[in-house]
Amino acid sequence: MMDSPQSASLSVEELHEVWPVLSIDERLEGFRLLPTSVADDFFLDLSAREQGELITHLPASERRTWVRLLPPDDLADLVQAVAVEPGQADAILAQLDDASRREVNVLLAYAEDDAGGLMNPRFARVRPEMTIDEAIGYLRKQAREKVETVYYAYALDAEQRLQGVLSLRQLFQAASDKKVADVMQHDVVTVSENTDQEVVSQLFTEHGFMALPVLDEQNRMKGIVTVDDIVDVVQEEATEDIQKVGGMEALEAPYFEVGFFGMLKKRIGWLLVLFLGQMLTATAMSSFEGAIERAVVLSLFVPLIISSGGNSGSQASTLIIRALALGEMRLKDWWRVARREVLSGLVLGFVLGAVGLARIVVWQEVAGAYGEHAFLLGCAVALSVLGVVTFGTLAGSMLPLVLRRFGFDPASASAPFVATLVDVSGVVIYFTVASLLLRGTLL
Amino acid sequence: MMDSPQSASLSVEELHEVWPVLSIDERLEGFRLLPTSVADDFFLDLSAREQGELITHLPASERRTWVRLLPPDDLADLVQAVAVEPGQADAILAQLDDASRREVNVLLAYAEDDAGGLMNPRFARVRPEMTIDEAIGYLRKQAREKVETVYYAYALDAEQRLQGVLSLRQLFQAASDKKVADVMQHDVVTVSENTDQEVVSQLFTEHGFMALPVLDEQNRMKGIVTVDDIVDVVQEEATEDIQKVGGMEALEAPYFEVGFFGMLKKRIGWLLVLFLGQMLTATAMSSFEGAIERAVVLSLFVPLIISSGGNSGSQASTLIIRALALGEMRLKDWWRVARREVLSGLVLGFVLGAVGLARIVVWQEVAGAYGEHAFLLGCAVALSVLGVVTFGTLAGSMLPLVLRRFGFDPASASAPFVATLVDVSGVVIYFTVASLLLRGTLL
Repeated sequence: MMDSPQSASLSVEELHEVWPVLSIDERLEGFRLLPTSVADDFFLDLSAREQGELITHLPASERRTWVRLLPPDDLADLVQAVAVEPGQADAILAQLDDASRREVNVLLAYAEDDAGGLMNPRFARVRPEMTIDEAIGYLRKQAREKVETVYYAYALDAEQRLQGVLSLRQLFQAASDKKVADVMQHDVVTVSENTDQEVVSQLFTEHGFMALPVLDEQNRMKGIVTVDDIVDVVQEEATEDIQKVGGMEALEAPYFEVGFFGMLKKRIGWLLVLFLGQMLTATAMSSFEGAIERAVVLSLFVPLIISSGGNSGSQASTLIIRALALGEMRLKDWWRVARREVLSGLVLGFVLGAVGLARIVVWQEVAGAYGEHAFLLGCAVALSVLGVVTFGTLAGSMLPLVLRRFGFDPASASAPFVATLVDVSGVVIYFTVASLLLRGTLL
Repeated sequence: MMDSPQSASLSVEELHEVWPVLSIDERLEGFRLLPTSVADDFFLDLSAREQGELITHLPASERRTWVRLLPPDDLADLVQAVAVEPGQADAILAQLDDASRREVNVLLAYAEDDAGGLMNPRFARVRPEMTIDEAIGYLRKQAREKVETVYYAYALDAEQRLQGVLSLRQLFQAASDKKVADVMQHDVVTVSENTDQEVVSQLFTEHGFMALPVLDEQNRMKGIVTVDDIVDVVQEEATEDIQKVGGMEALEAPYFEVGFFGMLKKRIGWLLVLFLGQMLTATAMSSFEGAIERAVVLSLFVPLIISSGGNSGSQASTLIIRALALGEMRLKDWWRVARREVLSGLVLGFVLGAVGLARIVVWQEVAGAYGEHAFLLGCAVALSVLGVVTFGTLAGSMLPLVLRRFGFDPASASAPFVATLVDVSGVVIYFTVASLLLRGTLL
């Protein structure tokens, strides 16, 4: 590490560029090389996890400046991020003045994924009985003190119950001597402290709000969730879904920040489950060992057939998972989805099956690869593909709905799970079709 | 359709609830049943596509009210959404006053996915030489006219070049007689009109901005992109990635709004490519037909082995695709990723292979299913799983990086593509290992 941090200088862009690949010691060194004028902004731009990492590695004497730079909701996130190591949270809270510490402690009591855990307790408030001019003056005073987001002003009564809301635009538009109560909107969309962040983010995307007020059970206003926090929520939820669709547990941290064994733990679970499931394909195939012995050529098409079911199944399940996450469809639409997906499966399966048949017939003509019963074999493959793709599409679309119905996350490894389910059924479908169609010829 | 729209009433919530499943005629009917006081808000909450659909089905006499309700950036989106039917765009533009039509036409010239296509040309502007009190007065005047988002005020010189920015908070905090130029921040993060929306959204998530100014090549300010539009961008990009990971083209519209054949078109393409790719497994297996004939038992484990490679490969590719999309990793990290993923693959493959060996040995003990060479067979399966999982993990992690390197979207069907690639190689690995290990015993 450097002894004299002033000896060299570094630009924010340069540090940003290399940041992801630096060790904590290198990060600390780089951070100290930043000119003081830009170090604040650089620090504020870091994720809560990175801020926490830096702060816990700074000497106690330097911590206070950085801790006090953060608003209460970001501080609560930071404390949650470092709380894995005992004592760290208290060390950080000790740097705060009493009022801020109280605010952060209140926020820490909420689950991280609830509206309460997302909200900022510092919002702009006015009284319904104020005039517009009084309200603007009062807001200027609040902005000077500690309110960060002055996009809406909330009109509260003496018991802190929400009476209405005014956008700054409405405030600025209104005549100076009107009352807040005359201008404000009475019908306010609110969330409760325990509303899940996914629901909160759906409200934001549906309505295009800049901020939403959070109320407790007595309708007292506790804080606001702002749209910039929602961007992070949306990213986070999408990342979780993508990772689950990819057949693993959600990582909950950037790729390079998850340790090697932590990463393995997130990956091995589902791989094992799927591997054990796939063992059923061996069991299923062993009951057709006789057929394979008589016509080895049958075994050549097993991977082709089961994977076409798996691919169409993951397609369908991915579609439905995303539609559910975006609120485009609800459980009670299942019948509509099922009808549509069966039809899709039939068409997709028909096209793929026809291609498969053509391939076998052509190969036979060209290379004589499949013997005298090539056409019948091709028909067996085509029919199986039709059946497997239809079944895969249906199963893939219904599984996420079933998972949701029983309170599970529809994204949980649905796609690879469907692939496994379809693989096993694919083996059974294929050999059953083949037995029926090829009896007396190949078999 | 109803003749007297006042004859019944409907609440916004009721209509929201059923909206996704209504036909356009039913939507029109429901929309007209809304009390006028809430119809505005309901209309503003709809997506551009839905707004366009409603408007094009309204009689010309009713269109103007709704068209004029929308700010220019939303109008441009609406026009783009209806522009598939010729003449519709002009019919809507004809409803606007001249000034608004000019604004919308300028926005329409930008690509939908660029900063220029996202921006709102109406932003709050001040002059650097104004006092704080003058600036606040000037902002009140602008809010009264047409500026929607007054979160930041932008200080422009006479040539409309951006000189600095003030947040409302800074404006409110500053002493009344100070100059804007003394208080404003000079160092402003900006984007150009042609910046891609994915880059814009990364700037928002990294820095937590509420709005970003958009400049043209002469540094003149053209508009602002606000964070509420970014929420939609982030959702949209994540949906595209998830759908591509699921092995299809991005839908670009909600599930129920895509027609049956449109949906098939988005799905059949990749399924066909993958099906044709999978045919190589049949080719690969046919070169081992002799081995299968001698030991049919070998064929039983083909699905198990290739799918374990496919699963681990989609895991790895999904991880890397998401890390790339979030900017957590760059191309030049490829060597670090490769080393890490090979190691992960070896550990994961070792665990799965051991489970596979155990399964075969136990089944042999219990049921005598695999004959006298069961242990050797188990070793061949275990070794193949180790090889296939390691190869799958490496291929899965490298493919998205290779796609990005050559300018393609890393998400493009990577996961199923990797699965297919790994299936074919899996067949080769398995039968090669088996030939070497079982020569003289089973083979």
